[in-house]
Amino acid sequence: MTSGFPHRHLLGIEPLDAAHIETILDTATSLREVLDRPIKKVPTLRGKTVVNLFYEASTRTRSSFEIAEKALSADTLSIATASSSAQKGETLLDTAKNLEAMNPDAIVLRHSASGAPHFLARHCRSVIVNAGDGAHEHPTQALLDALTLRQKKGRIEGLRVAIVGDLLHSRVARSNLLLLTKLGARVTLCAPETLTPAGIETLAPVIHDVDEAVAGADAIMMLRLQTERMAGGFIPSLREYHARYGLTEARVKRARKDVVILHPGPMNRGVEIASEVADGPYSVILNQVTNGVAVRMAVLYLLLGGPQESH
Amino acid sequence: MTSGFPHRHLLGIEPLDAAHIETILDTATSLREVLDRPIKKVPTLRGKTVVNLFYEASTRTRSSFEIAEKALSADTLSIATASSSAQKGETLLDTAKNLEAMNPDAIVLRHSASGAPHFLARHCRSVIVNAGDGAHEHPTQALLDALTLRQKKGRIEGLRVAIVGDLLHSRVARSNLLLLTKLGARVTLCAPETLTPAGIETLAPVIHDVDEAVAGADAIMMLRLQTERMAGGFIPSLREYHARYGLTEARVKRARKDVVILHPGPMNRGVEIASEVADGPYSVILNQVTNGVAVRMAVLYLLLGGPQESH
Amino acid sequence: MTSGFPHRHLLGIEPLDAAHIETILDTATSLREVLDRPIKKVPTLRGKTVVNLFYEASTRTRSSFEIAEKALSADTLSIATASSSAQKGETLLDTAKNLEAMNPDAIVLRHSASGAPHFLARHCRSVIVNAGDGAHEHPTQALLDALTLRQKKGRIEGLRVAIVGDLLHSRVARSNLLLLTKLGARVTLCAPETLTPAGIETLAPVIHDVDEAVAGADAIMMLRLQTERMAGGFIPSLREYHARYGLTEARVKRARKDVVILHPGPMNRGVEIASEVADGPYSVILNQVTNGVAVRMAVLYLLLGGPQESH
Repeated sequence: MTSGFPHRHLLGIEPLDAAHIETILDTATSLREVLDRPIKKVPTLRGKTVVNLFYEASTRTRSSFEIAEKALSADTLSIATASSSAQKGETLLDTAKNLEAMNPDAIVLRHSASGAPHFLARHCRSVIVNAGDGAHEHPTQALLDALTLRQKKGRIEGLRVAIVGDLLHSRVARSNLLLLTKLGARVTLCAPETLTPAGIETLAPVIHDVDEAVAGADAIMMLRLQTERMAGGFIPSLREYHARYGLTEARVKRARKDVVILHPGPMNRGVEIASEVADGPYSVILNQVTNGVAVRMAVLYLLLGGPQESH
Repeated sequence: MTSGFPHRHLLGIEPLDAAHIETILDTATSLREVLDRPIKKVPTLRGKTVVNLFYEASTRTRSSFEIAEKALSADTLSIATASSSAQKGETLLDTAKNLEAMNPDAIVLRHSASGAPHFLARHCRSVIVNAGDGAHEHPTQALLDALTLRQKKGRIEGLRVAIVGDLLHSRVARSNLLLLTKLGARVTLCAPETLTPAGIETLAPVIHDVDEAVAGADAIMMLRLQTERMAGGFIPSLREYHARYGLTEARVKRARKDVVILHPGPMNRGVEIASEVADGPYSVILNQVTNGVAVRMAVLYLLLGGPQESH
Repeated sequence: MTSGFPHRHLLGIEPLDAAHIETILDTATSLREVLDRPIKKVPTLRGKTVVNLFYEASTRTRSSFEIAEKALSADTLSIATASSSAQKGETLLDTAKNLEAMNPDAIVLRHSASGAPHFLARHCRSVIVNAGDGAHEHPTQALLDALTLRQKKGRIEGLRVAIVGDLLHSRVARSNLLLLTKLGARVTLCAPETLTPAGIETLAPVIHDVDEAVAGADAIMMLRLQTERMAGGFIPSLREYHARYGLTEARVKRARKDVVILHPGPMNRGVEIASEVADGPYSVILNQVTNGVAVRMAVLYLLLGGPQESH
């Protein structure tokens, strides 16, 4: 492992302390510059192989990891469930152990079960990067959100951040809450009662009224509403959800004048966010995507690169 | 952009004038030679990233683009709808803007909606290459057909070309008609009445009798019959279609003695084309496929390569 | 082709003689060392393109081939049926001829029809590698099994090997039986009557009692039970199959003290093999996977590499 970054895996934000998070963000800031060059490639991970093992569909996160890996000159192998041995009844551990036996340098895992990457990290020798595990964590999302905030605001400490939406099922909310708290931001959570996990108020204040939650905010992070939640009876209707929790221009006006609006995508326009807001002057949603590549490059660089690396 | 090729995108044949088409064909002729080398690779697009965004299934076109991109040393990222955010209800524009935020150099788009690539070109900064949009255009197909014709006949001007088959749903027919007309060929169109779009006779003569249409032709371009058209009542039966419009050896004899037979694939043997013709001495169908890689290399080279390029 | 390896294709074990098999294993032993380096890549196949054309789902074999190809610096193109022209009714031969027209250096084919790769080899110019054809052959699996045996036992000649499981549907069994016999091992076959192909007893002794079959064995190769066989009435139940044919610790004790246990994966734990055995001290199952990459590198190197190569 590279000096200055003592972790072998990126399993979540929870095990990182503030200094490690800053190291990732600083590294991402340096690497981001590579992406603006005419030749968007550095030889850092030449001859390394990264397996992207995705048990849930994802365009954005998988593409972002693949582009990051290729920009570092790694070889990539992407495996999606639909065509995988999972269909043949193989366990996650057997699939991972088999991939590992092919000597990849890292496995990037997305899985619907919370804790799946931790399980692999305990039982495999490979470097594991969590690309989203159930409703648990999505650490690279929180890191790219933090990078975006730091770019736009110059700092994270002291920022007032409102996280609004489906807190119950959101790994994005959880990772962001952890990260922002570690870096000294003041987080307010906002969700309907039906989408608020029990006990979360011990981590940050919970407000059920979105107008109140966004008042005076430096940043508003909107969460994606998974529309299949409607079938579960969590929300009455999409229209009703938009009326009560959607981020509209009127609600944005309640925040600070220099507020920034984040969304992890893919967006449901007209549900959790109005199109005018998504495309408006405060939105940094596409900056998040660009920063996603830089953050993933940084994570892979810190875990796999560097001279003393010897896994 | 490279001097001599003033277009930023390849959206269709329609916006190209004859000189631009000739530039693409000349470039493809030079690059085709790379494909015959033991090492089929030039470093031209090293460090460039091309995203292949395919909303319709395609082996041939996607493979051809991927091979072309890799032969130019570009990094490629291929996204098929089945595993894409489209499933999560994201719009084409949001998907494209998100991909674009990852800084690719070009997006190659196949989409079932006519005009989808033009829409992206208006709203995105990326270079857009149309890999087939609805029933509208499929410009790289027309270019590879033209390259094949030029190789076999030495010229396109003055050639008598019959385009036979489902004109109503064919983007291949449309792009070829535009290209061949711009380059001075004399095109005859042939289809059943039910598969002839209204008004097309203003662009080229339409003949419903295939024996008459192919008489004296220098080249015959057969179109793929999408067998799902039968359900729509466009054709009575595959057998009947073959009897009335299929290209048989008897019909080939009505053309010129040095006629060439083209088909964009995948072929329905025994429907629009008899196997003896597909595999016979006049068929240049596999040459088309080889030229497809060369034409796609040329398009990407002209849009992305060259010293003054600065997108 | 490289001197010392006179085959143009790898269609099966059947056409190889013992010396050719030894050449592949020796080459794999040399190349395996590349996979332990920090930079797991040699430039041997730079500028070569390998198409992986998979008509059956496969994580393990496809991943292994892709990693092998990239470790040799080849460009890879992977095509899975689901998204292929096969859906549009194109024949295997037309698909292959079209891919071939794009000038790849090799096509790696997995297909549900026995003889599919031989058919392609007769009609195409490309180098063909059989990655599993129906119930016929899976030569790279047998080669990686042999490499694993040779590593663990120092030799193959004279070894007593029991192959246990669904012999009727297993291409793995067939390729292993051929290879092991050519190299002088003494093979015993074991399966329920319903899963024993007629006439196989002319190739090796068949024993229906597994306790008897494994007695004194140097190696036990367990075959995957495809659970869909139950519907066909081939086996009464998974529990019954495990009781009568599953490899348990008690059965392993009947073999030699230094027995090695192989399984081609993916495993049905608790069906054909007990978890304690799969994860136990005699299991070389993950060594097989690692050796799979090395064997596939060796095959591609011998077929495509070398100075006098000129396809």
